[in-house]
Amino acid sequence: MDNRTGIYEYRTDSYLLDFRGQLPLPTLGNYLLHAATVHAGGFGFGFDDMAERKAAWVVSKLAIELTSPGRLTEPLRILTWVQQVERIFTFRCFEITALHGGETLGYARSVWAAIDRETRRPVSLDGLGLADFVTERACPVAFTSPEPAEKDTQGIPYTVKYSDLDVNGHLNSIKYIEAILDLFDIETYRTRSVVRFEIAYQAEGRYGMQLLLHKKQTAENEYTAAICNEGKSISRAKIKFSS
Amino acid sequence: MDNRTGIYEYRTDSYLLDFRGQLPLPTLGNYLLHAATVHAGGFGFGFDDMAERKAAWVVSKLAIELTSPGRLTEPLRILTWVQQVERIFTFRCFEITALHGGETLGYARSVWAAIDRETRRPVSLDGLGLADFVTERACPVAFTSPEPAEKDTQGIPYTVKYSDLDVNGHLNSIKYIEAILDLFDIETYRTRSVVRFEIAYQAEGRYGMQLLLHKKQTAENEYTAAICNEGKSISRAKIKFSS
Repeated sequence: MDNRTGIYEYRTDSYLLDFRGQLPLPTLGNYLLHAATVHAGGFGFGFDDMAERKAAWVVSKLAIELTSPGRLTEPLRILTWVQQVERIFTFRCFEITALHGGETLGYARSVWAAIDRETRRPVSLDGLGLADFVTERACPVAFTSPEPAEKDTQGIPYTVKYSDLDVNGHLNSIKYIEAILDLFDIETYRTRSVVRFEIAYQAEGRYGMQLLLHKKQTAENEYTAAICNEGKSISRAKIKFSS
Repeated sequence: MDNRTGIYEYRTDSYLLDFRGQLPLPTLGNYLLHAATVHAGGFGFGFDDMAERKAAWVVSKLAIELTSPGRLTEPLRILTWVQQVERIFTFRCFEITALHGGETLGYARSVWAAIDRETRRPVSLDGLGLADFVTERACPVAFTSPEPAEKDTQGIPYTVKYSDLDVNGHLNSIKYIEAILDLFDIETYRTRSVVRFEIAYQAEGRYGMQLLLHKKQTAENEYTAAICNEGKSISRAKIKFSS
């Protein structure tokens, strides 16, 4: 293992699990954010380091692929590394493994931008020295472009509340995932598991926003979803269930 | 420190914080549940031990008092101990301290019952040997009886969704807290902090239940809340804000 890959352990205590006894995808998402946070902080480009530059990291895309979703009942070890750095975006990958045994249970890929805290616009990553931390490791997850879901579908209303807000005062990136997963009924989760979840964050959700949540089936066990505000999507997602 | 008190450390990473940069009360509640889980497991009466007896712990009441809510920005150390054991109920207390410095930031008191997984009825705690773990430590939090909030108030509809369910398939005890806190608008949180939160769990919320959330002001900065299903409360709470 090279020393630029971060390795962190996560619990799957019963009080954290869903009704199937599995770690919910939003909680796994929080674990990925935690791994990213600790890893970046350890190399000097974490939240506090960015705050000194009046910037903040925001996640722009996230795709998670699970080969063994049924094993999200066990304690996990998550590996994370910087896979690529561009001027505006940096790509971070994750490998999700079983803490005992070490088998790979899935992978994830994410895209991050640093935005100016005042203007909310991306800042250049050039001066951060991120390129020194790029690691060559396989991460067999690719981004696609989720198709629009809002045409010809009825949206479910969702109002952004206090508990939905993150430290920047915007809809928490994990809450987008939770709201989209809640578009599927319990029968879906009783019989199937999410094997792939991809989300693109397009705009920031704000307190009191009256959102509409849309979903549309695109193939057997495959769906596209959109979170819309005043007719424009602020997030698109693609969900694939096990057959 | 006696060896029957559990001591655990918790993070307050930025991605966990609310728009004020403070740890949200539901997340603090999750930390308390985590401390309780690890502590009970270490003494042989944890989730898995109860599962072998075809039983599960359920929290019946929880009261949290914060003397320094503004310091829920720092890493925490939570102490927990068994304060009393009765035939059906056991009382567990918590002290919430700053990890660096060690100052007490608040206390919490909880009541737990073990229920049979099939009948959902409480089972006797007599054979568990819990009394051996009782510890004498001060916990200056007392339970009160939250007054009904549903009379003469308009309820806000809330439907129990997939992400609200715990491992037993019921409305997650932390989600009750989140739903009640979301009854207050952002202006409340901008200017005040919760200094006391007490909740009594009366009945289990189930998937698809159409709940009504009520809140009623009882004094300056004090409120009572109720979660109702078909006209009957399944939970009552009392919330006090800083002035």
